[in-house]
Amino acid sequence: MIDKQYIKDNFPLLALIDSPSDLRKLPVEQLPDVCRELREFMIDSLSKNPGHFASSMGTVELTVALHYVFATPYDRIVWDVGHQAYSHKILTGRRDNFDTLRKFGGISGFPNPEESGYDAFIAGHASNSISAALGMSIASLIKSEAKRRNIVAVIGDASISGGLAFEGLNNTSMNKNNLLIILNDNDMAIDPNVGGLNDYMTHITTSKSYNTVRYKTYLLLKKFHIVDERNKGTILRFNNSIKALITHQQNIFEGLNIRYFGPFDGHDVVRIVRVLNDIKDMEGPRLIHLRTLKGKGYAPAEKDPTTWHAPGCFDKDTGIRLKQDTEGKPIKYQEVFGNTITELAEKNEKIVGITAAMPSGTSLCIMQDKIPERTFDVGISEGHAVTFAGGLAKDGLLPYCAIYSTFLQRAYDEIIHDVAIQRLRVTFCIDRAGLVGEDGVTHHGVFDLAYLNCVPNMTIASPMNEHYLRNLMYTVQLKDCGPFAIRYPRGRGTLVDWKNEMHEMPVGKGRKLADGEDVAVLTLGPIGNDVAKVIDELKSEGVNIAHYDMIFMKPLDDDLLNEVCKKFKKVVTVEDGTIHGGFGTAVMAWMNNNCHAVKIKRIGVPDEFIHQGSIDELRKQCGMDNESIKRAIMELKEEKL
Amino acid sequence: MIDKQYIKDNFPLLALIDSPSDLRKLPVEQLPDVCRELREFMIDSLSKNPGHFASSMGTVELTVALHYVFATPYDRIVWDVGHQAYSHKILTGRRDNFDTLRKFGGISGFPNPEESGYDAFIAGHASNSISAALGMSIASLIKSEAKRRNIVAVIGDASISGGLAFEGLNNTSMNKNNLLIILNDNDMAIDPNVGGLNDYMTHITTSKSYNTVRYKTYLLLKKFHIVDERNKGTILRFNNSIKALITHQQNIFEGLNIRYFGPFDGHDVVRIVRVLNDIKDMEGPRLIHLRTLKGKGYAPAEKDPTTWHAPGCFDKDTGIRLKQDTEGKPIKYQEVFGNTITELAEKNEKIVGITAAMPSGTSLCIMQDKIPERTFDVGISEGHAVTFAGGLAKDGLLPYCAIYSTFLQRAYDEIIHDVAIQRLRVTFCIDRAGLVGEDGVTHHGVFDLAYLNCVPNMTIASPMNEHYLRNLMYTVQLKDCGPFAIRYPRGRGTLVDWKNEMHEMPVGKGRKLADGEDVAVLTLGPIGNDVAKVIDELKSEGVNIAHYDMIFMKPLDDDLLNEVCKKFKKVVTVEDGTIHGGFGTAVMAWMNNNCHAVKIKRIGVPDEFIHQGSIDELRKQCGMDNESIKRAIMELKEEKL
Repeated sequence: MIDKQYIKDNFPLLALIDSPSDLRKLPVEQLPDVCRELREFMIDSLSKNPGHFASSMGTVELTVALHYVFATPYDRIVWDVGHQAYSHKILTGRRDNFDTLRKFGGISGFPNPEESGYDAFIAGHASNSISAALGMSIASLIKSEAKRRNIVAVIGDASISGGLAFEGLNNTSMNKNNLLIILNDNDMAIDPNVGGLNDYMTHITTSKSYNTVRYKTYLLLKKFHIVDERNKGTILRFNNSIKALITHQQNIFEGLNIRYFGPFDGHDVVRIVRVLNDIKDMEGPRLIHLRTLKGKGYAPAEKDPTTWHAPGCFDKDTGIRLKQDTEGKPIKYQEVFGNTITELAEKNEKIVGITAAMPSGTSLCIMQDKIPERTFDVGISEGHAVTFAGGLAKDGLLPYCAIYSTFLQRAYDEIIHDVAIQRLRVTFCIDRAGLVGEDGVTHHGVFDLAYLNCVPNMTIASPMNEHYLRNLMYTVQLKDCGPFAIRYPRGRGTLVDWKNEMHEMPVGKGRKLADGEDVAVLTLGPIGNDVAKVIDELKSEGVNIAHYDMIFMKPLDDDLLNEVCKKFKKVVTVEDGTIHGGFGTAVMAWMNNNCHAVKIKRIGVPDEFIHQGSIDELRKQCGMDNESIKRAIMELKEEKL
Repeated sequence: MIDKQYIKDNFPLLALIDSPSDLRKLPVEQLPDVCRELREFMIDSLSKNPGHFASSMGTVELTVALHYVFATPYDRIVWDVGHQAYSHKILTGRRDNFDTLRKFGGISGFPNPEESGYDAFIAGHASNSISAALGMSIASLIKSEAKRRNIVAVIGDASISGGLAFEGLNNTSMNKNNLLIILNDNDMAIDPNVGGLNDYMTHITTSKSYNTVRYKTYLLLKKFHIVDERNKGTILRFNNSIKALITHQQNIFEGLNIRYFGPFDGHDVVRIVRVLNDIKDMEGPRLIHLRTLKGKGYAPAEKDPTTWHAPGCFDKDTGIRLKQDTEGKPIKYQEVFGNTITELAEKNEKIVGITAAMPSGTSLCIMQDKIPERTFDVGISEGHAVTFAGGLAKDGLLPYCAIYSTFLQRAYDEIIHDVAIQRLRVTFCIDRAGLVGEDGVTHHGVFDLAYLNCVPNMTIASPMNEHYLRNLMYTVQLKDCGPFAIRYPRGRGTLVDWKNEMHEMPVGKGRKLADGEDVAVLTLGPIGNDVAKVIDELKSEGVNIAHYDMIFMKPLDDDLLNEVCKKFKKVVTVEDGTIHGGFGTAVMAWMNNNCHAVKIKRIGVPDEFIHQGSIDELRKQCGMDNESIKRAIMELKEEKL
């Protein structure tokens, strides 16, 4: 909890606002001061307790205006993704415990209805706000509520390019409703140029060799540092879809029967209040287009919003980000992936890399810098990413699709229908697999093992360390294994000397790490390192427990499991994923089919949604920390069968 | 195989065409005759061996022109959904075995690369063609192929509204490529009116009370029989998205940097050939808009294309469809669903029904006719359907989302993120669950049990007959069970007298159907009826086998399983779904956790993709037919543990 006196002394206006009804008591002229205090409060708090920064700095005026004009929580604000909603949290009763943001037991980094009635709908995965808000708006009309309820969806320019958002937009005018969509357009790099560039782009689409011209335009923009390889994708895509149409009389929204207003300056709070008041009682779906600046109000963030998206701790006066002491620490798994795919692609020209709006998050940017012609950032569109990979693979290339585990859920049907049925050589590099920590309930990548295991033709592997990750990535390009999933977690690996000479691995083969008696522990992936520590500890206490790193969940290693079967009647499985249908369940099914009467204790994420906290805290909560694993092993060892 | 002489006598031109290279030898003036023969061939064949009819009749000229102009199979045609590709099959070497269409071991109803090199990519689920074809086009350029390879995606006006298609379109101009998209626009009901209606629609979007005006327009159109409740959704949606923009100078495709050509008459084969020749060597993404008539060339189908989408057998001379003898047979599960939701919704005004483009396929049309204001057909957009349902449920309504099992894969993330995390009361009525028969590999609904079981907060049930289906549907609206999946298969039920008085069921409770010794058989869903027959048979042979209908997969019935555990060391599970991670696996996991040393034999769909055939043939292939079940029970009974 933040000290009340500290808030009063430093943020006198915010101190008065316990809920939006307090905000609404202020005269409109005071709103710019509220906005100033909100920014100062966020800078103060987030410099010490890190979180998403630049996005929330850009939506301060928008948030204040929405709560000022609309009768929240009766009226509802549905945030898309939601990491821009910190001001919203501060204004809606979460000012005093804002220092618990993203911490275990604290407030979530995203809107969550479990946390507050002001959080109208869950947020975390992009592009869902329009569909959800449309449902709410229609619900209000079906229930014939006496008082009109306004539903507002706030969606960013990146999220609106997702297929789900398009489906929502496309259905918006199908039935009577009063949905208001706010398009929060913060694509700064393109902002000052949009008109001219747009007209130019429009012109050249009608010229004969426009693909060439487009490329020249891009080179020109690059020369003037308006685009770089990293943001090229976002800029062209947004230009292609929305902005290219907006300057014309009939823009895409009006084409979809949505009344369009804008664009307006998203940092002029008094004007936004006026616009909202003007249109709030209109009937039918409407869209307000606001131009905002990511990082607005904090110079370092305005200058480099990518870095300041989630900057970590920083000195708020100097803007210097506090460097974590990484001296002597292993690099991140994502960096091993990014470096390794680049290394492989430099030798094998069939390799292509694909990411869905996460070039830096997956470190595919390393390949993007060196081999841009074989690197594809398709934006927020995981479904397209996978089907596109299917097309590339069908014609002989070797796509590596780097997608976070939780976002790969968006492409489930595409994995089955467009890749697995045809047994195409698409490699899924599943980043952020397992518990992810502070991002919380919407972001844990715990379902992938279960939802992939039932898909025929899939191979599923998880390396215990960086060398195995590299070897797996090396292996898939040597021989046709069909669709191949390699899952690895968020965060750092275990080896400082990660860059081994790669060699081919036998598919479906695990390895024995330790001999033992009574109990065998079977692990999948990097959590095996923690288990190895536990087993070492037990050894020093005189208890010998066997340890097998299975590496592959599908196919399972028959030889190794036969060995286990012959020697052990008690097996513990440990995985960083859901127990229901996961690795342990696959082992159990094998045992049931191939031998009799093996007792299996499965350790993993239980059948409930897990909220935010550090990985250590969450593992403890799930009974997956070292102590719990040790206890489980010993309990099974002692158990009389 | 069709008799060669019969083909020569009746289809002299087709008899010459063993592959598209033969087609290309003909002078262009002969193509209309080829088209005429193709239609006659399809009418002749499909009147006897039923399949999709109207769609393929509408694409004859398009197909002939594509194979005439492009050097298939080097150039590639990527069909979307693919039930319009029968002419394509006939022209590409499958003329003589066209009578095996959709049969076990015969040719698939959809394009499938396993079947022919001319089938460039898998088809079955809508909206994937643009992404897949884009991948192929870029692959060709990356490989620097000496000869330019043309890639053509053929997509219908319904499929293009899916989110995946939009994601594909949105990425089309991101990288150099020579993709050609054919928009096959067969929305006849709106066709003669598109210009005027469109202008009107455009005008009214700018007027103040346009929602009201839109409704009046709709009433007007309805009065003149241009729209009805059934096709209202499709018409408005298409109007909203694509057509509303096409009449303007800058249409949506040009906005996305895709060169647009059209609209052209899709039945003028000579003209289409000319247009294709004109633009085939142009660089960059292009789109040709063709207007076609579903059912073209066969009067009954032109008049009623919905019925003639898949008409069954018919008399080709009279156009009279051969009625199946349904006298005394139970109605279909989908009809029980459609009637029951209507019955429930008439009493409970919180109930809303949602379908994604399948009002007749799911029988939700019954509710649509009676309660249109609470029935939503959202078009091909399963993701939106589920998130929209989430929004409705969040604000207190009770949505029933009727989606085929295989298409629900498209909404997997939305189920987890937008429904399950918030534990919203969305009921998933999962139609076509299990093996579906003739539609084949892309359509079997066999993964749902596995992919839903790992999702926290889900309840998963499958009724053994119509009464239980009704009782489950009745139960979910009485009390808050959170997200609730009710799965039922394609085809008819088992009870002629299906309309019971509904009563509440205890959630998570199964029932014992038969006592027995040695072996207990646990079943989920209607396949339990087959198992009951087997058990009766065994009883008459003096073997008593216990039978439990579990009804719920999640939560499992602890009491019943404890009873099983105490009495049996041998258990057989039977389900109409994949064994990996399905019902049997869930039972096995329960047994492992709660008692020791039960041997479980799981019967279900094995870990491979299953192709087309009758349900009986496919069950036999999977070891799920009565004989196999009987054998499995007896083998386990005899087994020494």
